[in-house]
Amino acid sequence: MDPANAASGLPFPHRHLLGIEGLRPEEIEALLAMAEDAVALNRQVEKKRSILRGRTQINLFFEASTRTQSSFELAGKRLGADVMNMSVASSSVKKGETLIDTAQTLNAMRPDILVVRHHAAGAVALLARKVGCSVVNAGDGAHEHPTQALLDALTIRRNKGRIAGLRVAICGDILHSRVARSNILLLSALGAEVRVVAPSTLLPSGIDRMGVRAFTRMKEGLEGADIVMMLRLQRERMDGSFVPSVREYFHYWGLDEEKLAYAAPDALVMHPGPMNRGVEIDPAVADGPRSLIGEQVEMGVAVRMAVLEALSAHLPNA
Amino acid sequence: MDPANAASGLPFPHRHLLGIEGLRPEEIEALLAMAEDAVALNRQVEKKRSILRGRTQINLFFEASTRTQSSFELAGKRLGADVMNMSVASSSVKKGETLIDTAQTLNAMRPDILVVRHHAAGAVALLARKVGCSVVNAGDGAHEHPTQALLDALTIRRNKGRIAGLRVAICGDILHSRVARSNILLLSALGAEVRVVAPSTLLPSGIDRMGVRAFTRMKEGLEGADIVMMLRLQRERMDGSFVPSVREYFHYWGLDEEKLAYAAPDALVMHPGPMNRGVEIDPAVADGPRSLIGEQVEMGVAVRMAVLEALSAHLPNA
Amino acid sequence: MDPANAASGLPFPHRHLLGIEGLRPEEIEALLAMAEDAVALNRQVEKKRSILRGRTQINLFFEASTRTQSSFELAGKRLGADVMNMSVASSSVKKGETLIDTAQTLNAMRPDILVVRHHAAGAVALLARKVGCSVVNAGDGAHEHPTQALLDALTIRRNKGRIAGLRVAICGDILHSRVARSNILLLSALGAEVRVVAPSTLLPSGIDRMGVRAFTRMKEGLEGADIVMMLRLQRERMDGSFVPSVREYFHYWGLDEEKLAYAAPDALVMHPGPMNRGVEIDPAVADGPRSLIGEQVEMGVAVRMAVLEALSAHLPNA
Repeated sequence: MDPANAASGLPFPHRHLLGIEGLRPEEIEALLAMAEDAVALNRQVEKKRSILRGRTQINLFFEASTRTQSSFELAGKRLGADVMNMSVASSSVKKGETLIDTAQTLNAMRPDILVVRHHAAGAVALLARKVGCSVVNAGDGAHEHPTQALLDALTIRRNKGRIAGLRVAICGDILHSRVARSNILLLSALGAEVRVVAPSTLLPSGIDRMGVRAFTRMKEGLEGADIVMMLRLQRERMDGSFVPSVREYFHYWGLDEEKLAYAAPDALVMHPGPMNRGVEIDPAVADGPRSLIGEQVEMGVAVRMAVLEALSAHLPNA
Repeated sequence: MDPANAASGLPFPHRHLLGIEGLRPEEIEALLAMAEDAVALNRQVEKKRSILRGRTQINLFFEASTRTQSSFELAGKRLGADVMNMSVASSSVKKGETLIDTAQTLNAMRPDILVVRHHAAGAVALLARKVGCSVVNAGDGAHEHPTQALLDALTIRRNKGRIAGLRVAICGDILHSRVARSNILLLSALGAEVRVVAPSTLLPSGIDRMGVRAFTRMKEGLEGADIVMMLRLQRERMDGSFVPSVREYFHYWGLDEEKLAYAAPDALVMHPGPMNRGVEIDPAVADGPRSLIGEQVEMGVAVRMAVLEALSAHLPNA
Repeated sequence: MDPANAASGLPFPHRHLLGIEGLRPEEIEALLAMAEDAVALNRQVEKKRSILRGRTQINLFFEASTRTQSSFELAGKRLGADVMNMSVASSSVKKGETLIDTAQTLNAMRPDILVVRHHAAGAVALLARKVGCSVVNAGDGAHEHPTQALLDALTIRRNKGRIAGLRVAICGDILHSRVARSNILLLSALGAEVRVVAPSTLLPSGIDRMGVRAFTRMKEGLEGADIVMMLRLQRERMDGSFVPSVREYFHYWGLDEEKLAYAAPDALVMHPGPMNRGVEIDPAVADGPRSLIGEQVEMGVAVRMAVLEALSAHLPNA
C-alpha cells in the first residue's frame, strides 16, 4: 500500500482496497468485524442505513459479472449511496489509453467510490492512481479479488470459530484464479495453513514462494483439510496448452463424496460461484449439508458493505 | 395456493403471487382496492411512499420485457424499496439447474421480493419453493401473468363501474397467451362472461373447460361485447404449424372500426401491448376514443404497487 | 418555444428543453447560475438534495451514450428523483409510429421528466407534443444537444470570466454535429464571436446564415481564438462521400501543439468526448495544461442538475 493512501487512527487506514497484499492482519480483522454488523443488519426487515447517503458509487465493470456487481450494488444501496452501474463491453475498449479516459471521465463526475472489474491484472491499481475517489478492486485479471477472499474468510470464521491453525485446500484452476491468489494471501496472513491442489499445468510456477504446499492429486492434497475450497474451471481463460475434457477433469479433480472423504471428518466445502456442476464439483456435494456456498453469497453483501463503510472514512471532507 | 403460504387475518393472505388461479374473489378485490389508492398517489407530484423503505426488490427477467420490468421498477421505487434489475440472457442459461442456482444465489443476498419472468410455464412457482422471500410472477411461459389480469380488471372497473355481468371478448392468439389465461380466470371469478375469439389453430384444446365460449369468427364472438380485449400476435412463439400472413390475419381477426361495430355500442377496447399496429389492431381503433390502452399502462404501475404492498405484510419479521 | 410551454414569473419559463434555439440570453444565464450552485454541491461530501424527491425521471435513449446517460442519471439521483433507464436498441424500433407508442406508454407511467436521445432530428420535439411531462433533449440526430452547449458555456465562463467578446473556434465535423449547432446558437446569443473550421465537405451549406465565419484551414481559423473546441470525427455518420483517412485528417485538422500556436497565447482547449486520440486531437494537447476536457464532464452533471431543477418548477401541481 502506498503510504499516501494511509491515514492514521482509523481501523482501516487505506483509501483504496486494491488487493489483500499489503494489508496487515489487524486491518483484515477490522473489516471482518464490520462485516459481522452488516450480516445482522441484512437479516432485519429494514436493511437501510444512511452512512453513504449523498455519496455516489459507480460500478465500472469491464468484464460482465452478474453476481459480484449485484452484490456491490445491494451493498451500496443498503448503505444509502446513489449507485450507478456502467458495463463496458470489453470489445469496444482499447486497452490502456481508453481505460484512463474512462476513469478520468467518471472521476470528473465526482463519485466517492469506484468499484472496478477489469480483465487485465494491474488495471485497477493503474486506474486508482488517476482518480480522486476511493477505488475497490472487484477483480483484475488473474491478480486479486480481495472482497472474495474477505467473504470467504468471514464464512470460514463463522463456521469454524477461527481461521488460525485451519488447513485449507484450494483446488482446481489455481493458475488463472485471482480468487486463489487473494485467498492464499489472506488466509496465510491470518494463520491458516493453505495448500493448493491442481493438475500441474494449472499450477503457477513459483507457487511455493507464496508459502503454500502444492499437490497434484486430490487424495494427498485434501488430507486432513478443514476447508475444501473448489474453484471454477475457467476454460475461457485457457489458451489451448491444457484444456482437459470435462469428464477427465471431474474424474481426477472434481469434488465428489468419495474425494471429500479424504479431508477431515468435519470438513466444509466452499465455491466462489458460479459453479460448473459436474465439472469441478458434484451436485450432491454442492447442495449437501457440508456446503457453505449459499452462505458465501450472503457474506459477500456484508463484506462489501464493510469495505464501503471503511473506505467512506477516507472520502474527501469526511 | 399452498396453505403454508397463507396467513389469516390479512386481506391478501398469500406470501407469493404466482397466478390468479387459486385466488378468492375477495382477495382480488382487496388488491384492486389497494391499487385505487396507488392510482391517486401516482397522480400527485410527490409520488413517494416509504412502505418498502429498507426492503430489497430484485427484478429477475429471463425474458426481455421493457414494459413490464419498468412498471415493476417504478412501483418498487415509488414505495421506497431498493430495486435491482437482473436481466439474464436466456441463451446463457441452462434450464432447470441453473434457474435454481440463480434463485438460490439471489436468495442468499436477502431480498424481500423477487419479481420473476421466465419463458417456461411453472418456472416461477418452482423458484418460489427454493427461496425465503416473496415471489411475484411477471409472466411464465404460456401459463400466467397475474398482474396483467389485475391491471386489466382495474381498468375495466374504473370505466364500466363493475365487472360482474359484463361480456368480455378476448381476441387473437389465445393459445400462446398467458395474458388470456390469467384474464379468463380473474374475470370469470369476478362474474364476467368471458368469450374467446381466434382462428381455430390458435385456440387451446379444452378451452371450454375453463368456462368460456370459443368463437372463430369476430362477428359472432364480438356480439354484444362490453369489452374487446385484443392480444398481441406472438409469431415468435409459433412453431410453424400455423403462421398466418399479416394481411390475412388482419382481414379476419384484426380489430378495425367495422368489426368493432359488432360489439355493444359502448364497447371499450383494450390491448396489453406492445401492439402490432395493422396486424391485430387498426391504428384508428388503438388511438380512438374507445381505447383504454394508455390507461392500462397507468393501472399497471398502480396494480404492481398494490401487489408489492400486499406481499410486504408477509415479509419475515414484518 | 411554443408559448403554451411558457409560464411567466419564472427565471426559466419553459416546460421542455428541446434546444438552445428560441431561448433568450437571460434564460440561458439563469440556467448557468443554477448550475454554479450545483457545482458547489457536487464538491461536497453529502451531494444529495431533495428537490426532486418523489418525482420520476426516465432516461429514454434510442442511441447508446454511456457518458450523457450517466451524467443525467447522477444529476437526477443527486436531486432525489427516482431515475429509471430505458435503452432502446435502435434496430428493434420502427421509426415514427413506434416512437410515439413508446412515448405514450412511458407517459402513462406518470413520469415527471423524460430525458430523450434519438438518432433522428426532430424526434424529441415530436415526442414532447405527445406527453404530459417535461422533456429534455439529450441529443436528436444532427439537430441539437442543448445541455452540451450549456456545459460548454459554463466551462468557458468559469475559466475566462465571460463569454461575450471571446473568439471561439469550433473545429472538425461541423456537418454531422448537433454539438456544433447548439454551441453556435448559445455562444452567439451570449455575445461570443463563433467561427467554424472544417474540411469543406464537412461544412453544412448555409453555415454562414448562422452568423459564423467558416474556414477550411486551421491556420486562418484559429487565429486569435480564445477557445478551440474540437469535435469528434463521427465516421459512423458519414455516407461515403468524404471519409478522410485518419492520418490525413490528423495532418490537416487534428489539434496538436503546433496548430494550437495559431490561437491566442492563452487559448484553452475543449472536446465534448469521447475523444478519438490521434485523429482530431493529439494526446499531448488533450492531457495538457490548457485542456478543459475533464472540467467539461464535471460541468455536465451540474448543468443537467440545473436543467432538471428549472423544469421541475413547471411540473403538474408543482
